[in-house]
Amino acid sequence: MFSSLLLHKLFVMIKKICFIILLFAAQISFAQNDSLVIKTFFNEELSKGKSYELLDHLSNKIGGRLSGSPQAQQAVDWGKRTMEYLGFDKVWLQELMVPHWIRGEKEKAKILSGKEKIDVRICALGNSIGTGAKGISANVIEVKSLSELEKLGRKNIEGKIIFYNRAMNPTLISTGSAYGGAVDQRGSGAIEAAKYGAIGVVVRSMTLAMDDYPHTGAMRYKDSVTKIPACAISTIGATKLSEAIKLDANTQFYFKQTCEMLPDVQSFNVVGEIKGSVFPDEIILVGGHLDAWDNGDGAHDDGTGVVQSIEALRLFKALGIRPKRTIRAVLFMNEENGVRGGNKYAEIAEKNHEKHIAAIESDGGGFTPRAFDVEGDVIEKMQPWVQLLKPYGIHEIKSGHGGTDIGPLKKQGVILIGYECDSQRYFDYHHTEIDTFDKVNKRELELGTANIAALLWLISEYGF
Amino acid sequence: MFSSLLLHKLFVMIKKICFIILLFAAQISFAQNDSLVIKTFFNEELSKGKSYELLDHLSNKIGGRLSGSPQAQQAVDWGKRTMEYLGFDKVWLQELMVPHWIRGEKEKAKILSGKEKIDVRICALGNSIGTGAKGISANVIEVKSLSELEKLGRKNIEGKIIFYNRAMNPTLISTGSAYGGAVDQRGSGAIEAAKYGAIGVVVRSMTLAMDDYPHTGAMRYKDSVTKIPACAISTIGATKLSEAIKLDANTQFYFKQTCEMLPDVQSFNVVGEIKGSVFPDEIILVGGHLDAWDNGDGAHDDGTGVVQSIEALRLFKALGIRPKRTIRAVLFMNEENGVRGGNKYAEIAEKNHEKHIAAIESDGGGFTPRAFDVEGDVIEKMQPWVQLLKPYGIHEIKSGHGGTDIGPLKKQGVILIGYECDSQRYFDYHHTEIDTFDKVNKRELELGTANIAALLWLISEYGF
Repeated sequence: MFSSLLLHKLFVMIKKICFIILLFAAQISFAQNDSLVIKTFFNEELSKGKSYELLDHLSNKIGGRLSGSPQAQQAVDWGKRTMEYLGFDKVWLQELMVPHWIRGEKEKAKILSGKEKIDVRICALGNSIGTGAKGISANVIEVKSLSELEKLGRKNIEGKIIFYNRAMNPTLISTGSAYGGAVDQRGSGAIEAAKYGAIGVVVRSMTLAMDDYPHTGAMRYKDSVTKIPACAISTIGATKLSEAIKLDANTQFYFKQTCEMLPDVQSFNVVGEIKGSVFPDEIILVGGHLDAWDNGDGAHDDGTGVVQSIEALRLFKALGIRPKRTIRAVLFMNEENGVRGGNKYAEIAEKNHEKHIAAIESDGGGFTPRAFDVEGDVIEKMQPWVQLLKPYGIHEIKSGHGGTDIGPLKKQGVILIGYECDSQRYFDYHHTEIDTFDKVNKRELELGTANIAALLWLISEYGF
Repeated sequence: MFSSLLLHKLFVMIKKICFIILLFAAQISFAQNDSLVIKTFFNEELSKGKSYELLDHLSNKIGGRLSGSPQAQQAVDWGKRTMEYLGFDKVWLQELMVPHWIRGEKEKAKILSGKEKIDVRICALGNSIGTGAKGISANVIEVKSLSELEKLGRKNIEGKIIFYNRAMNPTLISTGSAYGGAVDQRGSGAIEAAKYGAIGVVVRSMTLAMDDYPHTGAMRYKDSVTKIPACAISTIGATKLSEAIKLDANTQFYFKQTCEMLPDVQSFNVVGEIKGSVFPDEIILVGGHLDAWDNGDGAHDDGTGVVQSIEALRLFKALGIRPKRTIRAVLFMNEENGVRGGNKYAEIAEKNHEKHIAAIESDGGGFTPRAFDVEGDVIEKMQPWVQLLKPYGIHEIKSGHGGTDIGPLKKQGVILIGYECDSQRYFDYHHTEIDTFDKVNKRELELGTANIAALLWLISEYGF
């Protein structure tokens, strides 16, 4: 009935079908094994995890730990001791020099409007100079953007205090995007105002909440422009100040801050790793930053990233899972006001010809998981992993920002990955006195840790 | 060159291609319009939303509002007044009778172990009888499940207090599932223990947190079984009690509660609606429950569901969007200890031959959005909507539980939909004194409201 050609064609077709079936079966068992390993990370972390306990220590026993402070050194010692205690294969410090800015006495501020004196809550912006012991007061001019200064010109600005009052945009769903759209006022506000002869700046706090907590954060100076003092005012204070100016254009603002920048001091990144069993020279980094602003306890920013990085490695040890590639936890120093730790790390990696295949950073708080954000052309390759992580709250692996500390590794061709957790509450606490341990939910923190461990494992198994 | 047949075929093919292009273009503009409308809900809610302000009133001016309490009546009055003030087309009350359980004096409890007396924090379980003014004390037997009682038998249980101490499973990612796996101890624990002659039960609080807040919640009796008093103990208290029993098998437990069930009283569901412009007889319901346990302020359970339901309708009015189908907000009474409101609503709907095409419930707290859970065979049809809601945190429309209050509508063929927000923090607060306004994040609440409004709009536009 059949010609030999037909028989041959049939045979080829059957072979193809068998191959497809085998391939499909292999993929299923591959996916099943992956799921099982990932589930063990979550089981361990949610029932016997150490993330919360580590964060309790870092937040409550050490607290705020700005670069150059005694607490920053305590955090370095604690980080090294902890990773040694957990039995990582190798733990070491990377020496670097960091800026040493101190806040000085508690800041004071008043709105002086007609006969009224209204106390408002402010804090010095990081890196700012002080006002002198008597403080400064002057007429205050409200603007909503840096570009308004040019229109106002020197005649309207000279000798005055500039009040930057552009709110973060509440209609953006990502609060990080809303922050990005407002933070130029904090970073460059003093430089721009000084160009027109202003004597100080006061910046609306970077938050979407209406409350009385001033939010600190880094500001910059430029060598060619006069340095003037800069502070942040709470959103309630900003509202009062704006109302006072509307009622009386001659409203004055008084503030006093005794902060100052001291000479650079020695500090350290803390590094610990577990060696890969098959490709020990291929490194997958996971990190957060160890320094934190002095006004709070740096629980969400970035205590959570620090403990998640340590704990993600601990999970491998606790479960007896040896990664194929080397996994390395890095606690970076000085993200907040200099990124010296991130730069130093990349410099050493380059000098030592280390091969980092990926770097993951957790620096968006310890909230419930949402996504991984990737810089590098591996997003397609990572898509099958979404299905594995979806049961645990990671619904997307997409293009996005990796992280500030790992940023300097980019030019070495390293894939950068940011752990993205839910952003809605982050700026309620960010850089304030209420960035404290009680604001972190144990399970949300742990889910982040286990998702990061799962991603480390997937990359260590399959590479890029 | 071409035969007329070929020309005809070519013509048909071109017609087909044009049709496909037009269809594709129409679909794009259709999706674009949907996105634009949905975006307006979010813009309005995140910049000028009233959810938070409404919740502030309900939580802080009224507070806990258990069925039959004066606060429950205040909440009814407030709900009606609010919807009238907002100008809904029609606002009315549905009368019903509700159980009236009162807690009485502050509960007391002690572990009596050897010479030690350890005070522990408890609260009466809802619907429980009291212990009498002197309280009760007896040897206490720890079990982890209802089925253990049978093995112990009457000889080991008679005259004793049973301590149910099976913890919620922390390795389940959905805390609702973990709750579902433990809550039989609270609901049926007293019935089962009384069958073997126990004189009281103490139940480990339904939470994954280790803290000192006892969690109340409904328990049941059976007419044929002796009623014995039942209380919940905090997880810290449960740990202490378990340790004491391990050290001394003769450990006694003492507790006193003066709660009691009074005769049923009159109460109300509160209903408000905006009439559909094209299909006014097709109703899409959105609801939450107005009653809340007396020990806290019922902020997350279920103040958030109540204000989201009201506010979702207000958004249509504020934006001048007339829904094609009628949208109706229902504030159900008595979800916590009877579901009389849900039953009454369904009964009236059936009697009046109302055509509900869908009912949405928000009763999982006011946390960041995750999904919509659907009971009914429309999940396939709803899938294209996921893409529209994904930018706002809804990553899935999937099979799942609709809600307790809307449950009785199911047998009328109504599609039930539960708004699922992130579950990690819910049971930290659920049924405790710390279910208060400050535990709700304004933006997380608002994102839920706007997602619910968007879903109402999609159903009202496209039907099922």
